[in-house]
Amino acid sequence: MRIVDLITKKRDHYSLTDHELVQLIDDYTNDRIPDYQMAAFLMAVYLNGMSYQETAALTLAMANSGATIDLSGIPGIKVDKHSTGGVADTTTLILAPLVAAAGVPVAKMSGRGLGFTGGTIDKLESIPGFRTTLAHHEFIANVKRHQLAITGQSIDVAPADGKIYALRDVTATVESIPLIASSIMSKKIAAGADKILLDVKVGSGAFMKDLGAAVELAETMVKIGEIVGRDTKAILTSMEEPLGLAIGNSLEVKEAIDVLSGSYQGDLREVCLILGSHMLQLAGVAQDVKAGYQVLQQLLDQGIALKKFTEFIQAQGGISKVTDQPDLMPQATYCEDIVSLATGYVQKIDVAKVGYIATILGAGREYKGQSIDLTAGILMRCRIGDFIRDNQPLATFYGNDYGKFTEASKLLQQSIIIGNTAVTKPKLILGFVDKNGFTQI
Amino acid sequence: MRIVDLITKKRDHYSLTDHELVQLIDDYTNDRIPDYQMAAFLMAVYLNGMSYQETAALTLAMANSGATIDLSGIPGIKVDKHSTGGVADTTTLILAPLVAAAGVPVAKMSGRGLGFTGGTIDKLESIPGFRTTLAHHEFIANVKRHQLAITGQSIDVAPADGKIYALRDVTATVESIPLIASSIMSKKIAAGADKILLDVKVGSGAFMKDLGAAVELAETMVKIGEIVGRDTKAILTSMEEPLGLAIGNSLEVKEAIDVLSGSYQGDLREVCLILGSHMLQLAGVAQDVKAGYQVLQQLLDQGIALKKFTEFIQAQGGISKVTDQPDLMPQATYCEDIVSLATGYVQKIDVAKVGYIATILGAGREYKGQSIDLTAGILMRCRIGDFIRDNQPLATFYGNDYGKFTEASKLLQQSIIIGNTAVTKPKLILGFVDKNGFTQI
Repeated sequence: MRIVDLITKKRDHYSLTDHELVQLIDDYTNDRIPDYQMAAFLMAVYLNGMSYQETAALTLAMANSGATIDLSGIPGIKVDKHSTGGVADTTTLILAPLVAAAGVPVAKMSGRGLGFTGGTIDKLESIPGFRTTLAHHEFIANVKRHQLAITGQSIDVAPADGKIYALRDVTATVESIPLIASSIMSKKIAAGADKILLDVKVGSGAFMKDLGAAVELAETMVKIGEIVGRDTKAILTSMEEPLGLAIGNSLEVKEAIDVLSGSYQGDLREVCLILGSHMLQLAGVAQDVKAGYQVLQQLLDQGIALKKFTEFIQAQGGISKVTDQPDLMPQATYCEDIVSLATGYVQKIDVAKVGYIATILGAGREYKGQSIDLTAGILMRCRIGDFIRDNQPLATFYGNDYGKFTEASKLLQQSIIIGNTAVTKPKLILGFVDKNGFTQI
Repeated sequence: MRIVDLITKKRDHYSLTDHELVQLIDDYTNDRIPDYQMAAFLMAVYLNGMSYQETAALTLAMANSGATIDLSGIPGIKVDKHSTGGVADTTTLILAPLVAAAGVPVAKMSGRGLGFTGGTIDKLESIPGFRTTLAHHEFIANVKRHQLAITGQSIDVAPADGKIYALRDVTATVESIPLIASSIMSKKIAAGADKILLDVKVGSGAFMKDLGAAVELAETMVKIGEIVGRDTKAILTSMEEPLGLAIGNSLEVKEAIDVLSGSYQGDLREVCLILGSHMLQLAGVAQDVKAGYQVLQQLLDQGIALKKFTEFIQAQGGISKVTDQPDLMPQATYCEDIVSLATGYVQKIDVAKVGYIATILGAGREYKGQSIDLTAGILMRCRIGDFIRDNQPLATFYGNDYGKFTEASKLLQQSIIIGNTAVTKPKLILGFVDKNGFTQI
């Protein structure tokens, strides 16, 4: 079948067969289809949608467009976690050692990423000596021995996704549920996990602004998992304010250590416990979510999770005593409190803007390959609903480029709305989606 | 505004401003927008449509994307005619001298074209000596003196249209009313006529298969004309069978001569009289359509139209006695009757297939620049509703490649359906569209 016939089918609301989607992705990945034909196809998908069966077939075709990771040599059920992206979302750094301590093997391949902070790999590079590039055999051996290894991408996972994403970005076809779902799931499937837990962020600071769209995305990804035989569950969590307090690479590692040590109470810990309990249940190491939650609480409170993190750092060559002395990580030259200009309750936080401020301070990348300042970032000092007095700190800035602090400070004042009326904190966990559909909490 | 924002607007059902459309077309024509972005935009237009105002602005931007023809030096109201394309549609060759003889100045720039036969320029090249390339001053002078000149395209009229059409062809975005309408109208507007008469073909052999779609296209083009200030009218005519009997370049010139001499009665003459009478009315040389029709009948029956054709041929260097002796045009080496294998009434003619057969015989081009056989083609010997006896000719084939006749003959037998029931001839003129909307006839 010619590509123009496939575009026509989608344009006219027909479904493409699995075989047609495999051909489309294979031809596009291998440059046998020009960008302009794929662009027309993507816009037809954007406007006419795709069935679950089509989305699953597209996902598998993308997952198989390059090499895939084989984790079958590792005993146990491997569960991968993915977040659709939020600010101060340090969950991966916490969950990986936490569930590993509970007996769930974690074999994670992570990227550097763009955005307000670096990716998990960037964050881990804050730890002196830490090696983020493991050979495949070492990666597998480490997981077998420590239940945990994290490595940078040695192979180009799902190259079709990379190529299609770049095209979507310039053709106004990003915000499409089947295209977002297949992009996320193709990489997770290629990365080899048996089961997948998704943290779908909802709210003004997330890609999905409202619950309806978030549920639709979650349902689509769960359905893809079902069709391709990778058990998938999604938790919907709020992104109306930064999840943790730290936004920035070494700042987030320090916050992860705080949570893992059991000393930190708050939303970040709660989300980790919820996500982790579902991972335990998916992996079959906890009878149910409630039991899993209790196990994980103990692992945090008894310091066992932090011990696992220390063991993991040592296994990958990092200075393990960093978990006792976080200031062994590089420190920013400048550090400054940004104080409130008013007295009142925190009504609203513009999460996207706060993320952008972290980038200004040097914590994130605006383009691929850009160097980042691992010490830079923001430590939030207030949350929605807090009562703040005039001159009380709203946040602390960290960085090596003091010249940026003025602009960043001005933006921060705009990002945090303070008013007279008391406000209720937004609900943190909104629900979950599994094979039985959406359950609101 | 960035192109991705324009794509987003159209994707999200917003209207683009005139200024945005001018920028889009200007940037695309000058290679500042890549094909993949235009492809996504075109698919969004295909699926979400365009308002009349947007379509008119797009049309004007395309018309102004290259040089435009200035016909203001020619006195009188110049009326251009355009057909959306049918088989055995020899109307241009007939109408041009016919309305010129009635006093309407005809300054026509024609192309070679793809399809079952060549374009008007190819057809005229069947006449020995005829020059199809006139310098601009000669073109204008000839119209002033003879009311009629036809020349090949010396300039690239509406280059944006050519570039966009090539992209639509490979991105499944051809069959879109606003895109078809703007493509046709942009070329007519750039070609300089004051008023435009459109012959919109309807039926199984036309691009528009049903009356509804044809009316929509006609209304869009009439509306564009109104918005840009070029009075436009559309006649909807049937394309359920070849309009004339001749399909092929020199064969069609001969048929045009037959109609112009007044000796030919039938659908082709009738359509020419209808179209011509509307042209006379638009040009203000007839009080109304009915009066125009009578004038044109007389011009045909008294040989005045043929005399104008002879004068026109002479003015452009052709052997003018060809109108008396059509066999001065090149003749095909082979000529063969294809006879009926059954007795009965002609139920249906597959017009598209008949057109395709003419291409097989050598009358048309399948790709740009391909040489064509001016002598090749088909002379139809039956029309829908005719009673045909076994062994009676259905058509006569002409050509220089006898090897093609076998395949062509097999296809012709499939194209003409003969059955026992008597059938009514399809209605020839279905209605017209002007500023007041559609009037069914």
